[in-house]
Amino acid sequence: LITIALDAMGGDHAPKEIVKGALVALNEDEDLNITLVGSEVVIREELRKLKVTDLPSRLQIAHASESIGMWESPSTAYKQKKNSSIHVGLQLVKSGTAGAFVSAGNTGAVMMASTLILGRINGIERPAIATVLPTLSGGHVLMLDMGATMDAKPTHLLQFGVMGHYYSQLILGVERPRVGLLNVGEEEEKGNHLVQAATELLQAAPIQFVGNVEGKVVLFDVADVVVCDGFVGNSLLKFGEGLAEYFLRTLRNEVKRSFSAMIGAFLMRPAIKRFKDKVDYEELGGAPLLGVNGVVFISHGSSGEKAIKNCVHNAFESVKADMIAKIGGAVK
Amino acid sequence: LITIALDAMGGDHAPKEIVKGALVALNEDEDLNITLVGSEVVIREELRKLKVTDLPSRLQIAHASESIGMWESPSTAYKQKKNSSIHVGLQLVKSGTAGAFVSAGNTGAVMMASTLILGRINGIERPAIATVLPTLSGGHVLMLDMGATMDAKPTHLLQFGVMGHYYSQLILGVERPRVGLLNVGEEEEKGNHLVQAATELLQAAPIQFVGNVEGKVVLFDVADVVVCDGFVGNSLLKFGEGLAEYFLRTLRNEVKRSFSAMIGAFLMRPAIKRFKDKVDYEELGGAPLLGVNGVVFISHGSSGEKAIKNCVHNAFESVKADMIAKIGGAVK
Repeated sequence: LITIALDAMGGDHAPKEIVKGALVALNEDEDLNITLVGSEVVIREELRKLKVTDLPSRLQIAHASESIGMWESPSTAYKQKKNSSIHVGLQLVKSGTAGAFVSAGNTGAVMMASTLILGRINGIERPAIATVLPTLSGGHVLMLDMGATMDAKPTHLLQFGVMGHYYSQLILGVERPRVGLLNVGEEEEKGNHLVQAATELLQAAPIQFVGNVEGKVVLFDVADVVVCDGFVGNSLLKFGEGLAEYFLRTLRNEVKRSFSAMIGAFLMRPAIKRFKDKVDYEELGGAPLLGVNGVVFISHGSSGEKAIKNCVHNAFESVKADMIAKIGGAVK
Repeated sequence: LITIALDAMGGDHAPKEIVKGALVALNEDEDLNITLVGSEVVIREELRKLKVTDLPSRLQIAHASESIGMWESPSTAYKQKKNSSIHVGLQLVKSGTAGAFVSAGNTGAVMMASTLILGRINGIERPAIATVLPTLSGGHVLMLDMGATMDAKPTHLLQFGVMGHYYSQLILGVERPRVGLLNVGEEEEKGNHLVQAATELLQAAPIQFVGNVEGKVVLFDVADVVVCDGFVGNSLLKFGEGLAEYFLRTLRNEVKRSFSAMIGAFLMRPAIKRFKDKVDYEELGGAPLLGVNGVVFISHGSSGEKAIKNCVHNAFESVKADMIAKIGGAVK
């Protein structure tokens, strides 16, 4: 059995969707064991609502008397809430009781507590959040860092590339991942000092480095892994989120202005549903926090049952694949 | 009369769309004079095709024996093609013969030649490309820098904020522009060292600084000007371009799978057309290269007649508003 510590208090729909996700995940993986971390009273009440009166055999509760809100300052919360579900869950990983920690809670708090409690993998100087995005072909691209390291140095980008290579290979099943560097042009002389220095390091690394990748082709299957610093990655992801919302709302307003367009939109509904499923983050199973000395997954704050289930599954696979040891072996 | 030097050789659809755009622009502004810069033979041939046998009274040709291709290296082209349409056009601005230079050609070449030929405005250390994006309300937001300065320092971001303030006020007609700083969160302590240091400078500047703006709300009318470094801005813009293309293609594939969805898409066509017009860069009239000592506008490489006409119009307005002197007065 592989045990995943799951933060029952984290996320906009906690504890309900978390607990539901846990139950679905347990049904899908026979070798999975889940420890729900959070207020025991709240979790038991939630299970009762779901008509689960006795704890299933592969489900336990680890009580945590505090929880960290989505908008609390990570550093203050870290200092003042040592009994939060995030702390308790990470301690389970540190002690070896659990193989991984999964949370849809306060991303900053999970990152800070993970780094401070678990430490970093030997040879990795900074952690990175890796996000899986869908590509045009129906495949995926792994982007990192999406917001863990704000001021990256060239060696950090190199390490992100190596970690991305292993995650892509071990968890996403890409045999020989093509690792690219996000840049403003394809030519080698393009970009800022950071990416220019990182290019040299990545070229010398024992991975398949495919050079610069422009933002406009990231989703078009030109690389399996795309490396960038956390400020750029996070800005990109959020701008993309905003742009999708902008398109959706503007188009909806236009459709409302005409009756035939409304009929048209109605006829298109199944296609739009399939489209939404394709670009749905819930399918993508959360983002690993790579570089810390233990498997940690961060799920979207608005995660529902399905997102949680997929995230737990990816954490499970990461433990099974011995990902941390493999990354550690590669960067030593 | 205000004279605009227009690069007839720059862009994917040069010279045809450039010449057409010039003729339309002349019809719309009685105080506008245009000097088409490029091969005189080619330009005259293009005019002949458009059934313009004699040059209109407010149109001249400035012959340039060379042109710089879209994919040529800016530094090599600058050194080796001193008679390019970009050089000749910028020399017209430098000598005072023209008030502004407009080009849809090689962006890097225009930036480099502009900086070297015109120099910078006193007090501005680095140039910035400012792009106008549509917002949900139907308004606009000005983002800068979108790719001129790859390694920005905090003082550069401050200067971008001041230049953005003036462009927004003088050309976009925003009385009291709200200037924001692109960051990964709203809270002041967020972000990398660059934006943290820039925040202090922007707070002390004589503009209306509204603090951090997250990528996901840039298009939702929270600020009139959003400042970022050129690497981030360019990455964002290109990622957004790619995302729009990805959405479009994925949705189109889904629609093809069902007959009723195809009928639906057909019924939605006018709404989709209005939507496209709203998010169309052609409407937005190009991007000023702010900070160089002269009015320079860069139009999208794929500019058609309308984009050129709108870009010429904005350059005309910038000259009329005495923008360079006003920015210069503000940063002295």
